[in-house]
Amino acid sequence: MAKVRQKGKTLGFVPTMGALHAGHVSLIKKAREENDIVLVSIFVNPGQFGTKEDLKKYPRPRVKDHKLLKAEGVDYLFEPKAGDMYPVGFSSAVAVGEVPSPCPLPSGERVRVRGISHVLCGKFRPGHFRGVATVVTKLFNLAGACRAYFGAKDYQQSVIVRRLIRDLNLDIELRVLPTIREKDGLALSSRNRYLNPGERKKARAIPETLFWMRNEILHGVRDLPKLRRQGIAQLKQHVDRIDYLEIVDPETLESLEQFQPEMVLAAACYVGKTRLIDNVTIRPSKK
Amino acid sequence: MAKVRQKGKTLGFVPTMGALHAGHVSLIKKAREENDIVLVSIFVNPGQFGTKEDLKKYPRPRVKDHKLLKAEGVDYLFEPKAGDMYPVGFSSAVAVGEVPSPCPLPSGERVRVRGISHVLCGKFRPGHFRGVATVVTKLFNLAGACRAYFGAKDYQQSVIVRRLIRDLNLDIELRVLPTIREKDGLALSSRNRYLNPGERKKARAIPETLFWMRNEILHGVRDLPKLRRQGIAQLKQHVDRIDYLEIVDPETLESLEQFQPEMVLAAACYVGKTRLIDNVTIRPSKK
Repeated sequence: MAKVRQKGKTLGFVPTMGALHAGHVSLIKKAREENDIVLVSIFVNPGQFGTKEDLKKYPRPRVKDHKLLKAEGVDYLFEPKAGDMYPVGFSSAVAVGEVPSPCPLPSGERVRVRGISHVLCGKFRPGHFRGVATVVTKLFNLAGACRAYFGAKDYQQSVIVRRLIRDLNLDIELRVLPTIREKDGLALSSRNRYLNPGERKKARAIPETLFWMRNEILHGVRDLPKLRRQGIAQLKQHVDRIDYLEIVDPETLESLEQFQPEMVLAAACYVGKTRLIDNVTIRPSKK
Repeated sequence: MAKVRQKGKTLGFVPTMGALHAGHVSLIKKAREENDIVLVSIFVNPGQFGTKEDLKKYPRPRVKDHKLLKAEGVDYLFEPKAGDMYPVGFSSAVAVGEVPSPCPLPSGERVRVRGISHVLCGKFRPGHFRGVATVVTKLFNLAGACRAYFGAKDYQQSVIVRRLIRDLNLDIELRVLPTIREKDGLALSSRNRYLNPGERKKARAIPETLFWMRNEILHGVRDLPKLRRQGIAQLKQHVDRIDYLEIVDPETLESLEQFQPEMVLAAACYVGKTRLIDNVTIRPSKK
Protein backbone atom coordinates (compact mmCIF):
# COMPACT_ATOMS: atom_id res chain seq x y z
CA MET A 1 0.00 0.00 0.00
CA ALA A 2 1.46 3.30 -0.98
CA LYS A 3 1.27 5.74 1.86
CA VAL A 4 -1.87 7.79 1.37
CA ARG A 5 -1.23 10.21 4.20
CA GLN A 6 -0.57 13.57 2.65
CA LYS A 7 1.22 16.61 3.97
CA GLY A 8 -0.86 18.43 6.53
CA LYS A 9 -3.91 16.24 5.89
CA THR A 10 -5.52 13.91 8.39
CA LEU A 11 -6.12 10.27 7.55
CA GLY A 12 -8.85 8.15 9.11
CA PHE A 13 -8.51 4.38 8.86
CA VAL A 14 -11.28 1.78 9.15
CA PRO A 15 -9.88 -1.76 9.19
CA THR A 16 -12.53 -4.37 8.31
CA MET A 17 -12.93 -7.97 7.21
CA GLY A 18 -15.50 -6.89 4.60
CA ALA A 19 -19.11 -8.13 4.49
CA LEU A 20 -19.88 -4.56 5.44
CA HIS A 21 -23.01 -3.60 7.36
CA ALA A 22 -24.45 -0.51 9.04
CA GLY A 23 -21.95 -0.92 11.89
CA HIS A 24 -19.06 -0.45 9.47
CA VAL A 25 -20.94 2.41 7.81
CA SER A 26 -21.15 4.25 11.13
CA LEU A 27 -17.35 3.94 11.47
CA ILE A 28 -16.79 5.17 7.92
CA LYS A 29 -19.14 8.13 8.38
CA LYS A 30 -17.34 9.17 11.57
CA ALA A 31 -13.96 8.79 9.86
CA ARG A 32 -15.29 10.88 6.95
CA GLU A 33 -16.46 13.54 9.42
CA GLU A 34 -13.19 13.71 11.37
CA ASN A 35 -10.53 13.38 8.64
CA ASP A 36 -9.51 14.77 5.27
CA ILE A 37 -8.87 11.34 3.80
CA VAL A 38 -10.61 8.03 4.58
CA LEU A 39 -8.94 4.68 4.05
CA VAL A 40 -10.79 1.37 4.49
CA SER A 41 -9.10 -2.01 4.46
CA ILE A 42 -10.84 -5.29 3.69
CA PHE A 43 -8.81 -8.28 4.79
CA VAL A 44 -10.17 -11.57 6.09
CA ASN A 45 -7.14 -12.21 8.25
CA PRO A 46 -6.22 -15.92 8.41
CA GLY A 47 -4.05 -15.14 11.45
CA GLN A 48 -7.05 -14.62 13.72
CA PHE A 49 -9.06 -17.71 12.78
CA GLY A 50 -8.60 -21.04 14.55
CA THR A 51 -8.15 -24.15 12.43
CA LYS A 52 -11.75 -25.22 13.09
CA GLU A 53 -13.23 -21.77 12.59
CA ASP A 54 -15.08 -20.18 9.68
CA LEU A 55 -12.17 -18.69 7.64
CA LYS A 56 -13.18 -20.44 4.43
CA LYS A 57 -16.89 -19.73 4.59
CA TYR A 58 -16.51 -16.18 5.96
CA PRO A 59 -18.67 -14.00 3.67
CA ARG A 60 -16.82 -12.07 0.94
CA PRO A 61 -19.40 -10.02 -0.99
CA ARG A 62 -16.82 -7.93 -2.86
CA VAL A 63 -19.06 -6.19 -5.40
CA LYS A 64 -21.56 -5.12 -2.78
CA ASP A 65 -18.76 -3.95 -0.44
CA HIS A 66 -17.11 -1.89 -3.18
CA LYS A 67 -20.42 -0.21 -4.05
CA LEU A 68 -21.00 0.68 -0.43
CA LEU A 69 -17.51 2.17 -0.03
CA LYS A 70 -18.05 4.28 -3.17
CA ALA A 71 -21.42 5.47 -1.91
CA GLU A 72 -19.83 6.51 1.38
CA GLY A 73 -17.16 8.54 -0.38
CA VAL A 74 -14.24 6.46 0.88
CA ASP A 75 -11.00 7.69 -0.72
CA TYR A 76 -8.85 4.56 -0.60
CA LEU A 77 -9.49 0.85 -0.32
CA PHE A 78 -6.70 -1.50 0.75
CA GLU A 79 -7.55 -5.09 -0.09
CA PRO A 80 -4.37 -7.16 0.26
CA LYS A 81 -3.97 -10.84 -0.53
CA ALA A 82 -3.04 -13.16 2.33
CA GLY A 83 0.28 -13.92 0.64
CA ASP A 84 1.17 -10.22 0.57
CA MET A 85 0.45 -9.78 4.26
CA TYR A 86 2.16 -13.05 5.20
CA PRO A 87 4.92 -13.69 2.65
CA VAL A 88 6.95 -16.90 2.73
CA GLY A 89 9.17 -16.78 5.81
CA PHE A 90 6.78 -14.63 7.81
CA SER A 91 7.22 -15.73 11.39
CA SER A 92 6.46 -12.86 13.75
CA ALA A 93 3.69 -12.10 16.19
CA VAL A 94 2.58 -9.35 18.50
CA ALA A 95 1.42 -10.58 21.89
CA VAL A 96 -0.65 -8.11 23.91
CA GLY A 97 -1.55 -8.58 27.56
CA GLU A 98 0.29 -11.88 27.74
CA VAL A 99 3.76 -11.32 29.16
CA PRO A 100 5.08 -9.87 32.41
CA SER A 101 6.57 -6.39 32.20
CA PRO A 102 10.38 -6.41 32.04
CA CYS A 103 10.32 -3.70 34.67
CA PRO A 104 10.22 -5.01 38.23
CA LEU A 105 8.09 -3.10 40.72
CA PRO A 106 10.00 -1.17 43.42
CA SER A 107 9.28 -4.15 45.69
CA GLY A 108 11.28 -6.34 43.32
CA GLU A 109 8.19 -8.24 42.20
CA ARG A 110 7.26 -8.33 38.58
CA VAL A 111 3.93 -6.82 37.55
CA ARG A 112 1.30 -9.51 37.32
CA VAL A 113 0.03 -10.16 33.83
CA ARG A 114 -3.63 -9.34 33.70
CA GLY A 115 -4.17 -11.65 30.79
CA ILE A 116 -6.55 -9.49 28.74
CA SER A 117 -5.87 -11.78 25.76
CA HIS A 118 -6.65 -14.97 27.67
CA VAL A 119 -10.05 -14.23 29.22
CA LEU A 120 -13.48 -14.02 27.55
CA CYS A 121 -13.08 -14.79 23.83
CA GLY A 122 -9.36 -15.41 24.31
CA LYS A 123 -10.19 -18.45 26.44
CA PHE A 124 -12.25 -20.00 23.66
CA ARG A 125 -10.26 -18.81 20.66
CA PRO A 126 -6.59 -19.50 21.53
CA GLY A 127 -4.24 -17.37 19.42
CA HIS A 128 -7.09 -15.20 18.16
CA PHE A 129 -5.93 -11.97 19.76
CA ARG A 130 -2.30 -12.55 18.75
CA GLY A 131 -3.61 -12.75 15.21
CA VAL A 132 -5.62 -9.57 15.73
CA ALA A 133 -2.74 -7.65 17.37
CA THR A 134 -0.30 -8.75 14.67
CA VAL A 135 -2.50 -7.76 11.73
CA VAL A 136 -3.58 -4.52 13.39
CA THR A 137 0.08 -3.57 13.94
CA LYS A 138 0.84 -4.36 10.30
CA LEU A 139 -2.19 -2.45 9.00
CA PHE A 140 -1.48 0.56 11.22
CA ASN A 141 2.12 0.66 10.00
CA LEU A 142 1.03 0.36 6.37
CA ALA A 143 -1.72 2.95 6.68
CA GLY A 144 0.24 5.59 8.54
CA ALA A 145 -3.13 6.93 9.68
CA CYS A 146 -3.92 9.49 12.35
CA ARG A 147 -7.04 7.78 13.68
CA ALA A 148 -8.39 4.25 13.56
CA TYR A 149 -12.06 3.34 13.96
CA PHE A 150 -13.34 0.21 15.69
CA GLY A 151 -16.79 -0.89 16.81
CA ALA A 152 -17.67 -1.43 20.46
CA LYS A 153 -19.29 -4.77 19.61
CA ASP A 154 -15.83 -6.34 19.66
CA TYR A 155 -15.20 -4.94 23.12
CA GLN A 156 -12.24 -7.11 24.08
CA GLN A 157 -10.58 -6.34 20.74
CA SER A 158 -10.87 -2.61 21.43
CA VAL A 159 -9.25 -3.05 24.86
CA ILE A 160 -6.41 -5.03 23.32
CA VAL A 161 -5.87 -2.53 20.50
CA ARG A 162 -5.80 0.28 23.07
CA ARG A 163 -3.15 -1.63 25.06
CA LEU A 164 -1.25 -2.40 21.86
CA ILE A 165 -1.13 1.27 20.91
CA ARG A 166 0.10 2.22 24.38
CA ASP A 167 2.58 -0.62 24.89
CA LEU A 168 4.21 -0.36 21.46
CA ASN A 169 3.92 3.45 21.22
CA LEU A 170 1.96 3.36 17.97
CA ASP A 171 1.29 6.88 16.73
CA ILE A 172 -2.44 6.56 16.14
CA GLU A 173 -5.61 7.63 17.94
CA LEU A 174 -8.14 4.90 18.69
CA ARG A 175 -11.81 5.77 18.21
CA VAL A 176 -14.31 3.17 19.44
CA LEU A 177 -17.90 3.81 18.30
CA PRO A 178 -21.15 2.38 19.71
CA THR A 179 -22.52 -0.94 18.57
CA ILE A 180 -25.23 -0.62 15.93
CA ARG A 181 -28.24 -2.89 16.53
CA GLU A 182 -31.22 -4.27 14.64
CA LYS A 183 -34.67 -3.08 15.77
CA ASP A 184 -34.99 -6.07 18.11
CA GLY A 185 -31.60 -5.34 19.67
CA LEU A 186 -29.35 -7.87 17.89
CA ALA A 187 -25.87 -6.39 17.40
CA LEU A 188 -24.94 -6.08 13.73
CA SER A 189 -22.30 -8.59 12.68
CA SER A 190 -21.13 -10.03 9.38
CA ARG A 191 -21.83 -13.43 10.91
CA ASN A 192 -25.55 -12.68 11.35
CA ARG A 193 -26.03 -13.67 7.73
CA TYR A 194 -25.22 -17.27 8.71
CA LEU A 195 -28.44 -17.39 10.76
CA ASN A 196 -31.61 -19.01 9.40
CA PRO A 197 -34.93 -17.40 10.40
CA GLY A 198 -35.38 -19.67 13.43
CA GLU A 199 -31.83 -18.99 14.65
CA ARG A 200 -32.29 -15.29 13.98
CA LYS A 201 -35.20 -15.25 16.44
CA LYS A 202 -33.23 -17.16 19.08
CA ALA A 203 -30.30 -14.73 18.75
CA ARG A 204 -32.44 -11.94 20.19
CA ALA A 205 -32.01 -13.55 23.59
CA ILE A 206 -28.39 -12.35 23.72
CA PRO A 207 -29.06 -8.58 23.77
CA GLU A 208 -32.27 -9.14 25.73
CA THR A 209 -30.36 -10.88 28.51
CA LEU A 210 -27.57 -8.31 28.56
CA PHE A 211 -29.97 -5.36 28.64
CA TRP A 212 -32.08 -7.07 31.31
CA MET A 213 -28.97 -7.57 33.47
CA ARG A 214 -27.91 -3.98 32.98
CA ASN A 215 -31.40 -2.83 33.93
CA GLU A 216 -31.32 -4.92 37.11
CA ILE A 217 -28.01 -3.30 38.09
CA LEU A 218 -29.29 0.19 37.28
CA HIS A 219 -32.25 -0.55 39.55
CA GLY A 220 -30.05 -1.48 42.46
CA VAL A 221 -29.21 -5.17 42.12
CA ARG A 222 -25.75 -5.71 43.62
CA ASP A 223 -25.40 -9.49 43.88
CA LEU A 224 -23.43 -9.93 40.66
CA PRO A 225 -22.76 -13.69 40.91
CA LYS A 226 -26.49 -14.35 41.35
CA LEU A 227 -27.39 -11.97 38.52
CA ARG A 228 -24.90 -13.74 36.27
CA ARG A 229 -26.40 -17.14 37.12
CA GLN A 230 -29.86 -15.77 36.31
CA GLY A 231 -28.61 -14.37 33.02
CA ILE A 232 -27.05 -17.69 32.06
CA ALA A 233 -30.30 -19.54 32.92
CA GLN A 234 -32.24 -17.10 30.79
CA LEU A 235 -29.84 -17.36 27.82
CA LYS A 236 -29.79 -21.16 27.99
CA GLN A 237 -33.47 -21.29 27.13
CA HIS A 238 -32.72 -19.84 23.69
CA VAL A 239 -29.14 -20.30 22.51
CA ASP A 240 -27.42 -23.61 21.74
CA ARG A 241 -24.21 -23.09 23.69
CA ILE A 242 -22.81 -20.41 25.94
CA ASP A 243 -19.06 -19.75 25.77
CA TYR A 244 -19.35 -17.13 28.49
CA LEU A 245 -21.56 -14.54 30.11
CA GLU A 246 -19.40 -12.34 32.31
CA ILE A 247 -19.48 -9.10 34.25
CA VAL A 248 -16.00 -7.62 33.90
CA ASP A 249 -13.85 -4.61 34.62
CA PRO A 250 -13.77 -2.39 31.49
CA GLU A 251 -9.97 -2.16 31.44
CA THR A 252 -8.55 -5.34 32.99
CA LEU A 253 -11.45 -7.57 31.81
CA GLU A 254 -11.29 -9.36 35.16
CA SER A 255 -14.54 -10.97 36.33
CA LEU A 256 -16.26 -8.91 38.99
CA GLU A 257 -18.03 -10.27 42.05
CA GLN A 258 -18.59 -6.84 43.55
CA PHE A 259 -20.43 -3.90 42.07
CA GLN A 260 -18.34 -1.00 40.77
CA PRO A 261 -19.42 2.13 38.89
CA GLU A 262 -17.99 1.03 35.53
CA MET A 263 -18.59 -2.49 34.28
CA VAL A 264 -19.01 -4.37 31.04
CA LEU A 265 -21.47 -7.24 30.57
CA ALA A 266 -20.18 -9.48 27.79
CA ALA A 267 -21.46 -12.67 26.22
CA ALA A 268 -20.47 -15.16 23.53
CA CYS A 269 -22.98 -17.81 22.45
CA TYR A 270 -23.58 -20.24 19.66
CA VAL A 271 -26.89 -20.14 17.85
CA GLY A 272 -26.78 -23.20 15.62
CA LYS A 273 -23.21 -23.24 14.33
CA THR A 274 -22.84 -19.45 14.47
CA ARG A 275 -20.83 -17.86 17.25
CA LEU A 276 -22.18 -14.45 18.24
CA ILE A 277 -20.75 -11.93 20.69
CA ASP A 278 -22.24 -8.87 22.30
CA ASN A 279 -21.71 -6.55 25.25
CA VAL A 280 -23.23 -3.62 27.09
CA THR A 281 -21.47 -1.08 29.26
CA ILE A 282 -22.44 0.37 32.61
CA ARG A 283 -21.09 3.83 33.39
CA PRO A 284 -21.81 6.22 36.25
CA SER A 285 -24.75 8.42 35.24
CA LYS A 286 -23.81 12.03 34.57
CA LYS A 287 -25.73 14.33 36.89
CA MET B 1 9.60 11.85 23.05
CA ALA B 2 8.11 14.52 20.87
CA LYS B 3 8.32 13.61 17.24
CA VAL B 4 11.46 15.19 15.87
CA ARG B 5 10.83 14.30 12.24
CA GLN B 6 10.20 17.53 10.43
CA LYS B 7 8.43 18.24 7.18
CA GLY B 8 10.51 17.21 4.20
CA LYS B 9 13.56 16.43 6.35
CA THR B 10 15.15 13.04 6.80
CA LEU B 11 15.74 11.62 10.25
CA GLY B 12 18.45 9.10 11.09
CA PHE B 13 18.11 7.13 14.30
CA VAL B 14 20.87 5.37 16.25
CA PRO B 15 19.45 3.27 19.10
CA THR B 16 22.10 2.47 21.74
CA MET B 17 22.49 1.27 25.32
CA GLY B 18 25.06 4.00 25.96
CA ALA B 19 28.67 3.35 27.05
CA LEU B 20 29.45 4.69 23.61
CA HIS B 21 32.59 3.68 21.73
CA ALA B 22 34.05 4.11 18.24
CA GLY B 23 31.56 1.56 16.89
CA HIS B 24 28.66 3.80 17.91
CA VAL B 25 30.54 6.81 16.56
CA SER B 26 30.77 5.20 13.13
CA LEU B 27 26.97 4.73 13.17
CA ILE B 28 26.40 8.33 14.24
CA LYS B 29 28.77 9.69 11.57
CA LYS B 30 26.99 7.71 8.86
CA ALA B 31 23.59 8.87 10.16
CA ARG B 32 24.90 12.45 10.14
CA GLU B 33 26.10 12.00 6.55
CA GLU B 34 22.84 10.52 5.26
CA ASN B 35 20.18 12.53 7.11
CA ASP B 36 19.15 16.09 7.94
CA ILE B 37 18.50 15.28 11.59
CA VAL B 38 20.22 12.73 13.84
CA LEU B 39 18.53 11.20 16.87
CA VAL B 40 20.37 8.93 19.31
CA SER B 41 18.66 6.97 22.07
CA ILE B 42 20.39 5.66 25.18
CA PHE B 43 18.35 3.03 26.96
CA VAL B 44 19.72 0.06 28.88
CA ASN B 45 16.67 -2.07 28.12
CA PRO B 46 15.75 -4.36 31.04
CA GLY B 47 13.59 -6.36 28.62
CA GLN B 48 16.59 -7.91 26.89
CA PHE B 49 18.59 -8.96 29.97
CA GLY B 50 18.11 -12.33 31.63
CA THR B 51 17.63 -12.45 35.39
CA LYS B 52 21.23 -13.60 35.89
CA GLU B 53 22.74 -11.19 33.38
CA ASP B 54 24.57 -7.89 33.79
CA LEU B 55 21.67 -5.37 33.75
CA LYS B 56 22.66 -3.78 37.06
CA LYS B 57 26.37 -3.49 36.40
CA TYR B 58 26.01 -2.53 32.74
CA PRO B 59 28.17 0.60 32.30
CA ARG B 60 26.31 3.95 32.31
CA PRO B 61 28.93 6.72 31.79
CA ARG B 62 26.35 9.45 31.17
CA VAL B 63 28.59 12.52 31.25
CA LYS B 64 31.11 11.01 28.85
CA ASP B 65 28.33 9.81 26.54
CA HIS B 66 26.67 13.22 26.46
CA LYS B 67 29.99 14.92 25.61
CA LEU B 68 30.58 12.49 22.79
CA LEU B 69 27.09 13.05 21.33
CA LYS B 70 27.62 16.79 21.45
CA ALA B 71 31.01 16.49 19.75
CA GLU B 72 29.43 14.42 16.98
CA GLY B 73 26.75 17.03 16.35
CA VAL B 74 23.84 14.80 17.31
CA ASP B 75 20.61 16.84 17.19
CA TYR B 76 18.46 14.92 19.66
CA LEU B 77 19.08 12.52 22.52
CA PHE B 78 16.27 10.28 23.80
CA GLU B 79 17.12 8.87 27.21
CA PRO B 80 13.94 7.37 28.67
CA LYS B 81 13.52 5.86 32.11
CA ALA B 82 12.59 2.19 32.35
CA GLY B 83 9.27 3.13 33.93
CA ASP B 84 8.40 5.33 30.97
CA MET B 85 9.12 2.61 28.46
CA TYR B 86 7.40 -0.06 30.56
CA PRO B 87 4.64 1.64 32.55
CA VAL B 88 2.60 -0.32 35.11
CA GLY B 89 0.38 -2.74 33.22
CA PHE B 90 2.77 -3.11 30.30
CA SER B 91 2.34 -6.67 29.11
CA SER B 92 3.11 -6.87 25.39
CA ALA B 93 5.88 -8.42 23.36
CA VAL B 94 6.99 -8.69 19.77
CA ALA B 95 8.14 -12.18 18.80
CA VAL B 96 10.22 -12.37 15.62
CA GLY B 97 11.08 -15.62 13.87
CA GLU B 98 9.23 -17.67 16.44
CA VAL B 99 5.77 -18.50 15.15
CA PRO B 100 4.48 -20.28 12.07
CA SER B 101 2.96 -18.08 9.37
CA PRO B 102 -0.83 -17.95 9.50
CA CYS B 103 -0.78 -18.50 5.76
CA PRO B 104 -0.63 -22.16 4.74
CA LEU B 105 1.49 -23.07 1.71
CA PRO B 106 -0.43 -24.12 -1.42
CA SER B 107 0.33 -27.70 -0.34
CA GLY B 108 -1.67 -27.09 2.82
CA GLU B 109 1.42 -27.27 5.00
CA ARG B 110 2.38 -24.37 7.20
CA VAL B 111 5.66 -22.63 6.58
CA ARG B 112 8.30 -24.02 8.90
CA VAL B 113 9.57 -21.62 11.50
CA ARG B 114 13.22 -21.04 10.93
CA GLY B 115 13.76 -20.02 14.48
CA ILE B 116 16.11 -17.10 13.94
CA SER B 117 15.41 -16.03 17.54
CA HIS B 118 16.18 -19.44 19.02
CA VAL B 119 19.59 -20.25 17.53
CA LEU B 120 23.04 -18.79 18.36
CA CYS B 121 22.62 -16.21 21.16
CA GLY B 122 18.88 -16.97 21.35
CA LYS B 123 19.71 -20.47 22.59
CA PHE B 124 21.78 -19.13 25.47
CA ARG B 125 19.78 -16.00 26.25
CA PRO B 126 16.11 -17.10 26.29
CA GLY B 127 13.78 -14.15 25.78
CA HIS B 128 16.64 -11.85 24.77
CA PHE B 129 15.49 -11.26 21.21
CA ARG B 130 11.86 -10.79 22.26
CA GLY B 131 13.17 -8.03 24.48
CA VAL B 132 15.17 -6.60 21.61
CA ALA B 133 12.31 -6.81 19.08
CA THR B 134 9.88 -5.25 21.55
CA VAL B 135 12.08 -2.30 22.47
CA VAL B 136 13.17 -1.73 18.87
CA THR B 137 9.51 -1.63 17.77
CA LYS B 138 8.75 0.87 20.54
CA LEU B 139 11.77 3.03 19.75
CA PHE B 140 11.08 2.99 16.00
CA ASN B 141 7.48 4.05 16.64
CA LEU B 142 8.59 6.81 19.00
CA ALA B 143 11.33 8.07 16.71
CA GLY B 144 9.37 8.11 13.46
CA ALA B 145 12.76 7.96 11.71
CA CYS B 146 13.54 7.26 8.07
CA ARG B 147 16.65 5.19 8.72
CA ALA B 148 17.99 3.22 11.67
CA TYR B 149 21.66 2.38 12.20
CA PHE B 150 22.93 -0.85 13.74
CA GLY B 151 26.38 -2.41 14.00
CA ALA B 152 27.27 -5.69 12.29
CA LYS B 153 28.87 -6.96 15.52
CA ASP B 154 25.40 -7.90 16.73
CA TYR B 155 24.79 -9.90 13.58
CA GLN B 156 21.81 -11.94 14.76
CA GLN B 157 20.16 -8.80 16.07
CA SER B 158 20.45 -7.17 12.66
CA VAL B 159 18.84 -10.21 10.99
CA ILE B 160 16.00 -10.11 13.50
CA VAL B 161 15.46 -6.36 13.11
CA ARG B 162 15.38 -6.78 9.32
CA ARG B 163 12.73 -9.52 9.70
CA LEU B 164 10.83 -7.38 12.20
CA ILE B 165 10.71 -4.47 9.76
CA ARG B 166 9.50 -6.73 6.95
CA ASP B 167 7.00 -8.78 8.96
CA LEU B 168 5.39 -5.85 10.75
CA ASN B 169 5.69 -3.43 7.80
CA LEU B 170 7.65 -0.85 9.78
CA ASP B 171 8.32 2.21 7.65
CA ILE B 172 12.05 2.50 8.25
CA GLU B 173 15.22 1.65 6.35
CA LEU B 174 17.75 -0.55 8.13
CA ARG B 175 21.42 0.32 7.76
CA VAL B 176 23.93 -2.17 9.14
CA LEU B 177 27.51 -0.89 9.32
CA PRO B 178 30.76 -2.85 9.65
CA THR B 179 32.13 -3.87 13.03
CA ILE B 180 34.82 -1.55 14.33
CA ARG B 181 37.84 -3.34 15.84
CA GLU B 182 40.80 -2.64 18.08
CA LYS B 183 44.24 -2.84 16.48
CA ASP B 184 44.58 -6.47 17.54
CA GLY B 185 41.18 -7.33 16.02
CA LEU B 186 38.93 -7.37 19.10
CA ALA B 187 35.47 -6.11 18.17
CA LEU B 188 34.51 -2.96 20.04
CA SER B 189 31.87 -3.57 22.68
CA SER B 190 30.67 -1.73 25.75
CA ARG B 191 31.35 -4.95 27.63
CA ASN B 192 35.08 -4.87 26.79
CA ARG B 193 35.52 -2.50 29.72
CA TYR B 194 34.71 -5.40 32.07
CA LEU B 195 37.95 -7.14 30.98
CA ASN B 196 41.10 -6.98 33.12
CA PRO B 197 44.44 -6.86 31.24
CA GLY B 198 44.88 -10.65 31.31
CA GLU B 199 41.36 -11.24 30.04
CA ARG B 200 41.80 -8.53 27.42
CA LYS B 201 44.72 -10.51 25.97
CA LYS B 202 42.77 -13.76 25.98
CA ALA B 203 39.84 -12.09 24.18
CA ARG B 204 41.99 -11.62 21.08
CA ALA B 205 41.57 -15.33 20.40
CA ILE B 206 37.96 -14.73 19.33
CA PRO B 207 38.64 -12.58 16.24
CA GLU B 208 41.87 -14.51 15.58
CA THR B 209 39.95 -17.76 15.35
CA LEU B 210 37.17 -16.29 13.22
CA PHE B 211 39.62 -14.67 10.79
CA TRP B 212 41.72 -17.84 10.64
CA MET B 213 38.60 -19.87 9.76
CA ARG B 214 37.58 -17.37 7.11
CA ASN B 215 41.06 -17.48 5.65
CA GLU B 216 40.98 -21.25 5.51
CA ILE B 217 37.69 -21.12 3.58
CA LEU B 218 38.99 -18.42 1.24
CA HIS B 219 41.96 -20.70 0.53
CA GLY B 220 39.75 -23.60 -0.45
CA VAL B 221 38.89 -25.49 2.76
CA ARG B 222 35.42 -26.98 2.29
CA ASP B 223 35.04 -29.42 5.22
CA LEU B 224 33.06 -27.06 7.43
CA PRO B 225 32.37 -29.46 10.34
CA LYS B 226 36.10 -30.21 10.65
CA LEU B 227 37.00 -26.53 10.38
CA ARG B 228 34.48 -25.74 13.09
CA ARG B 229 35.96 -28.40 15.38
CA GLN B 230 39.43 -26.97 14.77
CA GLY B 231 38.17 -23.48 15.54
CA ILE B 232 36.59 -24.64 18.80
CA ALA B 233 39.81 -26.41 19.81
CA GLN B 234 41.80 -23.24 19.09
CA LEU B 235 39.37 -21.00 21.00
CA LYS B 236 39.30 -23.34 24.00
CA GLN B 237 42.98 -22.73 24.64
CA HIS B 238 42.23 -19.08 25.46
CA VAL B 239 38.65 -18.39 26.50
CA ASP B 240 36.91 -19.69 29.62
CA ARG B 241 33.69 -20.96 28.05
CA ILE B 242 32.33 -21.23 24.54
CA ASP B 243 28.58 -20.71 24.09
CA TYR B 244 28.88 -21.39 20.38
CA LEU B 245 31.11 -21.18 17.34
CA GLU B 246 28.98 -21.68 14.24
CA ILE B 247 29.08 -21.35 10.48
CA VAL B 248 25.61 -20.23 9.47
CA ASP B 249 23.47 -19.04 6.59
CA PRO B 250 23.40 -15.20 6.61
CA GLU B 251 19.59 -15.02 6.44
CA THR B 252 18.15 -18.14 8.09
CA LEU B 253 21.04 -18.49 10.61
CA GLU B 254 20.88 -22.25 10.11
CA SER B 255 24.12 -24.14 10.74
CA LEU B 256 25.89 -25.10 7.53
CA GLU B 257 27.66 -28.38 6.86
CA GLN B 258 28.25 -27.60 3.19
CA PHE B 259 30.11 -24.67 1.70
CA GLN B 260 28.01 -21.92 0.10
CA PRO B 261 29.12 -18.56 -1.34
CA GLU B 262 27.67 -16.47 1.51
CA MET B 263 28.23 -17.53 5.09
CA VAL B 264 28.63 -16.00 8.52
CA LEU B 265 31.07 -17.30 11.13
CA ALA B 266 29.76 -16.36 14.56
CA ALA B 267 31.02 -16.94 18.09
CA ALA B 268 30.01 -16.21 21.67
CA CYS B 269 32.49 -16.88 24.47
CA TYR B 270 33.09 -16.04 28.09
CA VAL B 271 36.38 -14.51 29.07
CA GLY B 272 36.25 -14.46 32.85
CA LYS B 273 32.68 -13.44 33.62
CA THR B 274 32.34 -11.36 30.47
CA ARG B 275 30.35 -12.70 27.54
CA LEU B 276 31.71 -11.50 24.21
CA ILE B 277 30.30 -12.02 20.71
CA ASP B 278 31.80 -11.55 17.30
CA ASN B 279 31.29 -12.58 13.69
CA VAL B 280 32.84 -12.35 10.24
CA THR B 281 31.11 -12.65 6.89
CA ILE B 282 32.11 -14.52 3.76
CA ARG B 283 30.80 -13.14 0.49
CA PRO B 284 31.55 -14.04 -3.11
CA SER B 285 34.53 -11.97 -4.25
CA LYS B 286 33.72 -9.25 -6.76
CA LYS B 287 35.68 -9.79 -9.95
